[in-house]
Amino acid sequence: MRRTIVATTLLAVTGLAHAAEPIQVIEPATITNPEMVELGKKLFFEPRLSKSGFLSCNSCHNLSLGGVDILPTSIGHNWQEGPINAPTVLNAKYMLAQFWDGRAATLQEQAAGPIANPKEMALEHELALDVLRAIPGYQAEFSEVFGDKGITLDTVTEAIATFEETLVTPNSRFDQYLNGDKEALSTAEQEGYALFKSKGCAACHNGPAVGGTMYQKMGLMQPFVTSNPAQGRVDVTGKEHDRMVFKVPTLRNIELTYPYFHDGSTYDLKEAVIVMQRVQLGQELTDQEADRITDFLKTLTGEQPQITLPILPPSVAGTPKPQPFAK
Amino acid sequence: MRRTIVATTLLAVTGLAHAAEPIQVIEPATITNPEMVELGKKLFFEPRLSKSGFLSCNSCHNLSLGGVDILPTSIGHNWQEGPINAPTVLNAKYMLAQFWDGRAATLQEQAAGPIANPKEMALEHELALDVLRAIPGYQAEFSEVFGDKGITLDTVTEAIATFEETLVTPNSRFDQYLNGDKEALSTAEQEGYALFKSKGCAACHNGPAVGGTMYQKMGLMQPFVTSNPAQGRVDVTGKEHDRMVFKVPTLRNIELTYPYFHDGSTYDLKEAVIVMQRVQLGQELTDQEADRITDFLKTLTGEQPQITLPILPPSVAGTPKPQPFAK
Repeated sequence: MRRTIVATTLLAVTGLAHAAEPIQVIEPATITNPEMVELGKKLFFEPRLSKSGFLSCNSCHNLSLGGVDILPTSIGHNWQEGPINAPTVLNAKYMLAQFWDGRAATLQEQAAGPIANPKEMALEHELALDVLRAIPGYQAEFSEVFGDKGITLDTVTEAIATFEETLVTPNSRFDQYLNGDKEALSTAEQEGYALFKSKGCAACHNGPAVGGTMYQKMGLMQPFVTSNPAQGRVDVTGKEHDRMVFKVPTLRNIELTYPYFHDGSTYDLKEAVIVMQRVQLGQELTDQEADRITDFLKTLTGEQPQITLPILPPSVAGTPKPQPFAK
Repeated sequence: MRRTIVATTLLAVTGLAHAAEPIQVIEPATITNPEMVELGKKLFFEPRLSKSGFLSCNSCHNLSLGGVDILPTSIGHNWQEGPINAPTVLNAKYMLAQFWDGRAATLQEQAAGPIANPKEMALEHELALDVLRAIPGYQAEFSEVFGDKGITLDTVTEAIATFEETLVTPNSRFDQYLNGDKEALSTAEQEGYALFKSKGCAACHNGPAVGGTMYQKMGLMQPFVTSNPAQGRVDVTGKEHDRMVFKVPTLRNIELTYPYFHDGSTYDLKEAVIVMQRVQLGQELTDQEADRITDFLKTLTGEQPQITLPILPPSVAGTPKPQPFAK
């Protein structure tokens, strides 16, 4: 349904000429509930949603860094090593589901996960809610935004998801190109885009986010060699054919969201392009082809969300204390 | 010298009536070099200045949280427990020296410390500079701001300090009161301020930052009982009379900068007031007196710096990699 709407908008904006493009423009965020967005932003930056009082959503989905932590796998409570590369929160609303294995259907469902995950923020939901309920500033703000619903897991995650839906990156040079400005891309970049389509990349990396529209086996044509133990969607569906099947990641802002792949095994975008072509499509790119595709991919860096750092409401003497060094 | 200038400004602003007040207003930041401030802001939020690629200045001096981490002691590389409560970066330019023991004379000198401290960001300075020098965006920006000086420890810390000098919190209700608006404080708060002066608090907590103008022994009249091993200025001067002597902390934004004392041993501001009166001045406050002083202290919360989150320039394939899980 959403994709239909996007396609319609696209036709209106760019005319029929681009109707056949596999990638659609990213539209700027439309904010209909600024109070909820503002509350969600606070919660996104709120370290008191972690057991330690130190980790927030922004710790691993850092909005200064393309919505990721630029680490192979994340650092969680007590410096635990995370199991998988943190996906970007930017343009996440365009994903068909959340997490690499798609185990959360929505951004709201996703938001609850890391808070309570003992390897991430490690704070049980009821304790997290106890903290927020004991902060007068949040009491007042939830009351304004949610009325009688109060501070619940549903309202907390709805606010976070509503904020995250605003985290889109429109107006990349590639979007300008899609919108008809042929000068927005150099010849090399246009060649890269042509290769991206002709070599088959766009078969999986398509839609406004240039990914996130489907699941795909990692290592479709050749095995993807990794020491990362993640098995992908088989853990969600229990079906053997979903082993090593992951959500196709977005390529929007790919220049910013290194290191690459679900195991974060390379920081080198060109190398990532070569590996993908080999293991997914069974082809070797020439050095020049890999350069051109890389050139194109860098045109997908859009305007980053302008975030005014929230000022978080203070705890009071009765607010439950963080436990940074509790195991 | 600086204090003389402040006093002169104060006379001009508020007239002779307030010349005898022990606290002076916080003036808004005057920014003369916005490019250096912007670069310094990026570096302040830059996790690649840590060995892990995860910790930045803002991790412990969080500008969403009054410039502190609201933890008793901080979390450093590999989740090491820090030795002392993180002081706020807000209004730090008014401190006579930096760190609790004053071991850094200036903000610039301070900024170098945590980067290389093995218990904090744990990245040797030369390695930190290697990282910045291998990021094209920083190469360009340092060149613009510092010309031929390039990327050195001096230019990095000068930029950070220049940003930090802008982190002031003017226009608190107490400043409005000092500037002549008697309605800005309630009767209870004015009583609290009178007690703050008459009970001796202002003997140490004075100047624009309501602290930071001197060193003082912690436990002057009665021993301050703590399990924290810090010994204060004796470690800087080697003089026995400096044992347990610390910089008097600022009380600006004290409502935000819990937990209190160099050991972060209480989250309760009223309790902190009672303990201070006891161990520093040898007096017991009545419950009501403690309430009134606490009321007054909460009027010291100023306008927090409005920070637009910086977008950090991306690493490239050749940029040295973070080592989050290296011991």
